[in-house]
Amino acid sequence: MAAGKTSVGRALAAATGRRFVDLDERIAAMGEPVAPLVARDEPEFRRREAAAIVEVTAEAEASVVATGGGAAAFGDNLDRMRAAGCVVALGVDPAESARRAARDTNAIRPLLASGAEQLAAARAPIYRRAHAVVDTMGKSVDDVVAHVRAVERVWQALPPGERGASILALGERSYPVTVSPSFPAGTLTRLLDGTTKIGLVTDANVARHHLEVAVASLGMHGARTEVVVIPPGEASKSFAQFERLTGELIARGLDRGSALVALGGGVVGDLAGFAAATLFRGIPVIQMPTTIVAMTDAAIGGKTAIDTPAGKNLVGAFWQPRLVACATDTLATLPARERRAGFGELWKYALLDGQALWDAVSACAGWAAGPDGTPPPSALRTVIDRSIAYKAAIVGRDERELTGHRALLNLGHTIGHAIEAASGMLHGEAVALGLIAAARVSAAVIGTPPALATELTAVLAATGLPSDLDPYLSDEILARVAVDKKRTGAQLKFICVRGVGSCEVVEIPVTEIRRILRSSSVH
Amino acid sequence: MAAGKTSVGRALAAATGRRFVDLDERIAAMGEPVAPLVARDEPEFRRREAAAIVEVTAEAEASVVATGGGAAAFGDNLDRMRAAGCVVALGVDPAESARRAARDTNAIRPLLASGAEQLAAARAPIYRRAHAVVDTMGKSVDDVVAHVRAVERVWQALPPGERGASILALGERSYPVTVSPSFPAGTLTRLLDGTTKIGLVTDANVARHHLEVAVASLGMHGARTEVVVIPPGEASKSFAQFERLTGELIARGLDRGSALVALGGGVVGDLAGFAAATLFRGIPVIQMPTTIVAMTDAAIGGKTAIDTPAGKNLVGAFWQPRLVACATDTLATLPARERRAGFGELWKYALLDGQALWDAVSACAGWAAGPDGTPPPSALRTVIDRSIAYKAAIVGRDERELTGHRALLNLGHTIGHAIEAASGMLHGEAVALGLIAAARVSAAVIGTPPALATELTAVLAATGLPSDLDPYLSDEILARVAVDKKRTGAQLKFICVRGVGSCEVVEIPVTEIRRILRSSSVH
Repeated sequence: MAAGKTSVGRALAAATGRRFVDLDERIAAMGEPVAPLVARDEPEFRRREAAAIVEVTAEAEASVVATGGGAAAFGDNLDRMRAAGCVVALGVDPAESARRAARDTNAIRPLLASGAEQLAAARAPIYRRAHAVVDTMGKSVDDVVAHVRAVERVWQALPPGERGASILALGERSYPVTVSPSFPAGTLTRLLDGTTKIGLVTDANVARHHLEVAVASLGMHGARTEVVVIPPGEASKSFAQFERLTGELIARGLDRGSALVALGGGVVGDLAGFAAATLFRGIPVIQMPTTIVAMTDAAIGGKTAIDTPAGKNLVGAFWQPRLVACATDTLATLPARERRAGFGELWKYALLDGQALWDAVSACAGWAAGPDGTPPPSALRTVIDRSIAYKAAIVGRDERELTGHRALLNLGHTIGHAIEAASGMLHGEAVALGLIAAARVSAAVIGTPPALATELTAVLAATGLPSDLDPYLSDEILARVAVDKKRTGAQLKFICVRGVGSCEVVEIPVTEIRRILRSSSVH
Repeated sequence: MAAGKTSVGRALAAATGRRFVDLDERIAAMGEPVAPLVARDEPEFRRREAAAIVEVTAEAEASVVATGGGAAAFGDNLDRMRAAGCVVALGVDPAESARRAARDTNAIRPLLASGAEQLAAARAPIYRRAHAVVDTMGKSVDDVVAHVRAVERVWQALPPGERGASILALGERSYPVTVSPSFPAGTLTRLLDGTTKIGLVTDANVARHHLEVAVASLGMHGARTEVVVIPPGEASKSFAQFERLTGELIARGLDRGSALVALGGGVVGDLAGFAAATLFRGIPVIQMPTTIVAMTDAAIGGKTAIDTPAGKNLVGAFWQPRLVACATDTLATLPARERRAGFGELWKYALLDGQALWDAVSACAGWAAGPDGTPPPSALRTVIDRSIAYKAAIVGRDERELTGHRALLNLGHTIGHAIEAASGMLHGEAVALGLIAAARVSAAVIGTPPALATELTAVLAATGLPSDLDPYLSDEILARVAVDKKRTGAQLKFICVRGVGSCEVVEIPVTEIRRILRSSSVH
């Protein structure tokens, strides 16, 4: 709402030689203008809106269609739109949306203008189900059109069977995140066309299960694939492995025309991504994540890094991949502990995104807690898709973590990283405890109901994740919070949570966080 | 010529609320339209043009002024323009300029329309003396305006006394290169405002002479400066020093709000630049070069790297500095050998830029060959300014070395790097020999007169640089050419030279380069 759909749509149509269709005009042509119709009988308006979408998507003419803000939220409208073309949501801050709607003298939706901010916030998870969200804040119409065209180019380059992807809207650096049972051969073949050599980086565990099929999926375009296997585990995110990996890739004959593929979890993605960012001052990288955490978080958004003795991820680069290809088949071989650990990040996304994702994650908790080899429930696909969509939207707003939006993704990570570094827990396990810590700090700082921390503890336990934070609130772990790289000066940008679907960045002195957590412990 | 001065000028004026002045209209208002005046009496046209510039620059009203393509080339017009405001040259390929001029039905300069390509090429070094060159190729008028505004913002932020700087036109990443006897305190103070901590990286040799004054120039804004000294010499561009430096900077308390300063030659700039590119995934860096090579080449353009056993600069990043601050006082303490070595790069720039720079470098050759402590000749300032302007223009066209323009800067480097790696020569010394190699390859491949290689040999010898290439055409050195990171596949993008001011990229098989050089040796 009030994001500039009509002006952007018209400019896009003009720039690309397509007709422009305003869906509200189609609805009005059915006999009654939109504003009085909504006021008189909203269900009838929604029926006509759905009929107009059926009509427009059935027409052969190349079009740019602007729909009302609610169209995506009802029935199968969104699925129909996604099947017919590239669906782009224009992002606008809820507060700004409300300001613009209040200024709108045409006021075609008087019903919606009041309470616009709440409505926009509630609909945000729905808009994220578009192929891409293009942020409009601070951008001119021309800027927004350029970003939409970049997304369309990525979408058009996808083979028709792989167009279910989410697309990160990053201008020239836009790229798709595909989710399918196996690796997307068509997209890989197109992307790697002309590559002199492919360096495939993986670890020994992943190689055992998935290397053969991955190499086969890369082989179609004819470039030679050089495989480099790194030791599994966080210890590989070291200067020594960085030096060994880059040296090995050079020795295998990679050059500036080559590309890397990262096949594995977060460690492989971070190390191979950093190697790609720096080898010959940067070559393309394709992420092929094989864990839940990597698919929904680590592989998306271009953060790469290695660790230093002082902390995790302190040396690295923002280096966007050309493609993130999630093959869900690879999750079947995930050891039970890693699978559970992945749910630490999924509960984080549930807190960030809202109730629908929370419910889907809840539906998968039993699977997470179960033994090796249990087939994933169908709800898992929803969980992965929505988590990716959330991450894609937020990275599109704040690629380099400068405006504070991307910082939201650090929910649970400030304390989580400290626990992980001190305890040797898996990343997702430590994040789970970090979420409880965030809820406790939020209760003290922004008045979040203490029940949230209690509920979180219960769902984490039901997922088989660590849920007893108190033993980890030692002086040693709390001291580590100070070297977190998110710190600027004495204040720390801490991610607080008000409730499911409502999180925010709050500047808090490090000493205050330590005090709150220390006093929150029942020990 | 035909770069879009009028349309860009009008759009810029409209966007920024200034009046637009077309200099040709001012000249016409003196009594005769420009086209017939040029045809009738070009010297009179130039006199009126100069008078119009005097008039317009004396007026108080904020203006955007578009001048004819030749205005900058005559008398003190350019100095007058630079004193009055920010001067931006719009760059256009000579061939494209000629095409546009031929299409121009107004044909206001019939005299110039023929031979436009030669004229544009000859004038390029003059346009580079503007504050910035904004490339127009493939850009819309709006794009060009956005780039010009970014340059203007950089220029406006400079204190009035420091506005002689060249500005790299890189959109949001635009930054100034200042040349003055000492460090530009005003610019440093403004840039470092709000920085939590400054990490100053230097080597022991530079620290002895210049650390005190550098720290003093940084101290004004109040942030604490942490000094880290690395061992002098190319060996410091290693993984080990990279790890040590980043670890030390983290240990000293730098965080995401901190900035680095690289005080020294190319080694310090490359290592500290790469540390800045990767520490906390990227923090700002200011380059304070203290050698001729660093001032005119290494510190400008954002290339950072460390070496690997397989070759130089194979791991690194493009990371643009916020400022390059050249303090020419620091050159007085440069050891004679390093001073001479710097002339390897200067002769390279002379070949790239044209006769005026060639003459200025020639005027400094005696100083280069002389003993330690000789005060620099005044021509050196011209040499430094023109070299910086050349590099700034070319980086602005091709920031990441993708279109082939930036590749021109590798003139002499393909063979130079191989010689440097094998012989332990200084970079500039090896580049000097690489220039002779380039002239020999050019003679064989594009028919460059063999006299050029002979002349180069003579001027290099007169500068006190190595000039006997043959002993370095060993199989060992020629084998190293293959691992140069510029190689893509079997072809190598080699920079050929036709003559002074005329260089081009030619794809040549590595084996062919080896064969030509082997057979060119008189041994």
